[in-house]
This record gives sequence, C-alpha cells and structure tokens, in this order.
Amino acid sequence: MKTSIKKINRLGIEKNLNTLKTDSVILIIDEKVLSLLPNLNLVNKKIITVIVAGGEQVKTFSTYESVSEKILEESPHRDSILVAIGGGATTDLAGFIAATLLRGIKWVAVPTTLLSMVDAGVGGKVAINSKHGKNLLGAFHAPNEVWIDPQFLTTLSEKELSSGKGEIVKYALLDKEIFKLVVNSASMAEIIEACVNYKKKIVEQDFKEKNIRKYLNLGHTFGHAYEKNYQIPHGIAVLYGLKTIVEKYCSKNIKDAYLQIVKKLGLEIYLNQTISYDQKLIEYIKLDKKRISEDKIEIIVLEDIGKPLIMTIEINHL
Amino acid sequence: MKTSIKKINRLGIEKNLNTLKTDSVILIIDEKVLSLLPNLNLVNKKIITVIVAGGEQVKTFSTYESVSEKILEESPHRDSILVAIGGGATTDLAGFIAATLLRGIKWVAVPTTLLSMVDAGVGGKVAINSKHGKNLLGAFHAPNEVWIDPQFLTTLSEKELSSGKGEIVKYALLDKEIFKLVVNSASMAEIIEACVNYKKKIVEQDFKEKNIRKYLNLGHTFGHAYEKNYQIPHGIAVLYGLKTIVEKYCSKNIKDAYLQIVKKLGLEIYLNQTISYDQKLIEYIKLDKKRISEDKIEIIVLEDIGKPLIMTIEINHL
Repeated sequence: MKTSIKKINRLGIEKNLNTLKTDSVILIIDEKVLSLLPNLNLVNKKIITVIVAGGEQVKTFSTYESVSEKILEESPHRDSILVAIGGGATTDLAGFIAATLLRGIKWVAVPTTLLSMVDAGVGGKVAINSKHGKNLLGAFHAPNEVWIDPQFLTTLSEKELSSGKGEIVKYALLDKEIFKLVVNSASMAEIIEACVNYKKKIVEQDFKEKNIRKYLNLGHTFGHAYEKNYQIPHGIAVLYGLKTIVEKYCSKNIKDAYLQIVKKLGLEIYLNQTISYDQKLIEYIKLDKKRISEDKIEIIVLEDIGKPLIMTIEINHL
Repeated sequence: MKTSIKKINRLGIEKNLNTLKTDSVILIIDEKVLSLLPNLNLVNKKIITVIVAGGEQVKTFSTYESVSEKILEESPHRDSILVAIGGGATTDLAGFIAATLLRGIKWVAVPTTLLSMVDAGVGGKVAINSKHGKNLLGAFHAPNEVWIDPQFLTTLSEKELSSGKGEIVKYALLDKEIFKLVVNSASMAEIIEACVNYKKKIVEQDFKEKNIRKYLNLGHTFGHAYEKNYQIPHGIAVLYGLKTIVEKYCSKNIKDAYLQIVKKLGLEIYLNQTISYDQKLIEYIKLDKKRISEDKIEIIVLEDIGKPLIMTIEINHL
C-alpha cells in the first residue's frame, strides 16, 4: 500500500477534487462538517453526494446498505473515486464502501477530527460495527490519498480533541521522537505530522498486519472493551487501555512516562474517573479481532519507550 | 492468489474438514444440500454452523448482516476457517463474509452445482446484490481450497444443470481444448476439470481483473442485463449474452461454433425463447461493473475460438 499525504486548505478543496483522475467523484460527507465546506462545482466531473450523520452510529449494516444503494442509484463506475470527508466513523464507513463497491474503487480520506487525522483516516483499516463488537466487519483498503487541513481542529469540541489526544499518547509511547515532541510542547500540527508519518511508515511495511503493524494496537484490546462497556469516545477508551497495559505489563519508568505524556496533553482529568477491569470486560476481549485461537490473544506491551513487543497470553490469564 | 483444487467425496467430507489447520471452523451450508451431507463431528475443533436458503435471494444486505451476526455471536477468531457448501449464491455470500469478517479470514469453497463448480466457486470473486444490479457489493477474496465432488451433479435438476452448461459454452468459446472436449462428447467430470483448470490459470495470472481475467466476462455484460430483466438463471442468461456477442460482434464461423456447442450440450431449446435486446436492457448495462467511465464500457469479443479480445465501446453505440 502507498498512500500520499497532502496538506490542504478546506476552503480550496474544490481545486484538489478537480485534480482527481476520474470523471466521477463520490462524496461521502459527515453532516457536521458540511457547513465548513465551500459549494462544490467540479469541471467535467459528475458528483454523487451522500450526507451521513456523524459518529459511530453511522457504522451499521443498515447505513452501509442505504449509503451504498444511494450511490449505486447514480451509476458509479470502476474508475469513480470516493472522497470521504469527516471523522473516523465517516472514513471507516466510507472506506468500507470504497473497499466493496463494484469490488473495490479508489478513495481519498479527508479526516476532519484530531482522532481521524492521526488514526482512522490513515492506514486503510476500514469497517462497520457488529452488535458483538466494534469493527468486526471490514477490510484493508488503503486510501490513495489523505488530505489533511489542521484548520479543522479549530472547529472541534474539547471532548473531540481529548479523544484524538488519547491516540497521541499511544504514539508517544511507541516512538521516542513523538515522545520528545509531546514533552517539549510542540505544536499540534507538528505532532499530527509526526504521528501520520510514523503510522504511514509502519503500514507501508506491513499493510495486512502480520507483524509490526500490530504495534499500533497498543492499548486497543483493552481500549475497545472499555469503549464498548462504558460507551466512551474511542481515544479516551484507548487512554484507559494504555493505562491497563502500563500498569499490568510494564515497568515503573514506562508508567511514569505515560503519566508525563497524559499531563502534557492535558488529559489527567480522565484518570480520576472510575473505570474498572472486570469479568464483563474480559467477555468483550474474547470478541476482539486480535484473538488468534480459542484460548489465546495477542497484546502489545512496551519494553521501553519506542520498544513495543507482541505478547501472546492465555485468555484465562487476563 | 493460489487456490488448491481437490476432488473429494461428500460422504467423507468430515475427513477433509479435520485436516484444516485451525481449531475453529465456520460452516455455511445451503439448506438444499444439508440432507446430502453426513453428520459432522470434528476432532479438537469448534464448529460454528449457519444454514442458509439456496439461490440468489440469499445474496442480500440483510442476509449478509444476519449470517455475520450469527457467526460473531459464537466468537470466531482470525485463524478460523470458513467453509461454504452450496451453489454459487452460497459461495458468493459466504466468500464475501470471509472477505470481511474480522477484515478477512481464510475460506474453502465446496460448490455443489455445476454452475458453481465451473464458475462462482473458483476464482475468489465474491459479492452480494444491490437493488440496482447483481454483485455490486463485493471483493476479490480467493478461497484457499476448492473441494469438488462431481457426484453432487446427480442431485441437480435439469434446469440447474442447464444453467451450469451456459457457462461451459463460454469456456468452450474461450479455449480450444475445452471446445474439443465438448464437441467430442467428453464426460461432464472431464469438462468440469478442464474449465476449473482454465479459470484457475487465468485467475492466477490476473487476480484483480486488470487484463486477461476480463476474458472470463465473455457474454456477461449482456448476460447480467438479461438475468435482471427476465429473472432467469445466471447460466441461461450467459447463454443469451453469448448469443448477443456472437451475433453483434463476431464472424459467422464463431456464430456457427456457438450453435454447435449449444447443440452438443443440449441447450438449443433455450434459443427458441423470445429474449429481446432493448432500451431497458441498455439501462441495466449502464450499471454493470465493467463500465470504466461515464460513457464507455468494456466488452469481450472473439477474434476466433480461443482468441478473446477486450473491446471498449461507447454506451451510446450499444
């Protein structure tokens, strides 16, 4: 997989759309960002537009059906290019549609939240949710391009920003350079760029997650279970998932580094909340895609900052 | 893609299932063949079984959802192997589930109709239908193995056999060896083997249908439109699609060869029926996945028996 990352200005997005090598563009836009975009009139291109609701609610079988049918009603073709503009839920759903529409067409991700800029929008893991767990139906389908406009960050709520920062905590634990940027108070634009490039580098080496891409799941096995159990935003759930990992499986200096990053990003308020690790959580973990047999699961732990390790553990020992 | 083709005996299928390298087998079985199978008790393997109705009715968004949810309820994992036993609709649906469940797991196709033995069961094109056309949502996801038991043919109706023969007409036009087998009255088991090997050879060279795999679409652009318009079996629709191609785009000797094959396979009765090529059909063709731009479509024509060609034509000239 090869994805090119481009900085854009949302007000000039029409220019970017016009450069796409196709005569047919399918736009899937999160309704929340619709008012932030200019009117779009493309030169010599047909546009098929579908507006979707924001948030995880959109990642259902029924939205997958209704959005796909709306697009198909307007006769897209194999060289149509799908452009997804929105948060991680929008890019997850739209990417899954791009992966399966006419057995797969090209797509561009335009992430508009901090979380999707550093996570879902990059890397080509696309999916919808099952009632038994998040992202249980999906594909690996890399976007051909990711267009990032950091100006979108100014439109986000504190909660949305915090969710994105939860993923940044993960990157700061996985990579020493990102750790340094965070503790040295680099700008959010710099941190985003470092995270995206880190992820791009990993994903290009291991697109189908056979080995090192698994590192990006640091905190996610527990995180997904917290997310499901407590109905909290993804990045905040990852923040808790990382806490479980550093407390149960890592040395004290890593736990200290975790706390340092959390404070630097202004997330310590979340650590005061009561999130407990119990039997119900373990039931959710059994449904995690990272399970590799009836009784084993792979989790990511840290030997040191920047030194992740894949560890196989028995589900009974969780 | 590398698929291994194995001859099996359905009564001994338990033995084949036991050799699969997994501790978790997901069986999706067409209800019509359930009574033809022995009771299955696997050694050291969990079995998740879902029975589905036969025929195209099963290739819907809603069956995709319900079957996926039933499987997920029983906690499959990434190394679970899905085994689809049934006709082309069953392998299409089950293959699409294998392609997307946990972002893709391994699968085995056990085609039980003539059509699926020579076509849908081999090659990894999997899909569900849209209300706007067949197979419009899908993936390329090759089965790791295809298990063929020609004894299943004895359980088929005349109509089911004829539908499979429609696809064999296509192979006999695409490949001189298969043409010879058919005109020399070879056994159906020999013809099946030749068709499967021809398809396997083509698909291994061009899995994602960028060039020569397109040959396998001979007759299919028109065929799919006839199938939709007249609600007829796939292989019979292909028989008509091939007729349109040889009549509109090929020389007289190819048309004669087509008629010779059709007679040899006992399909001439279908040529007496009134199937007409009209504007409504062209509307269906516009929805075909083979369309490559707003106004162009690729079809396959024949220069000679065994010499297919990809031709780009304007939709307005259809």
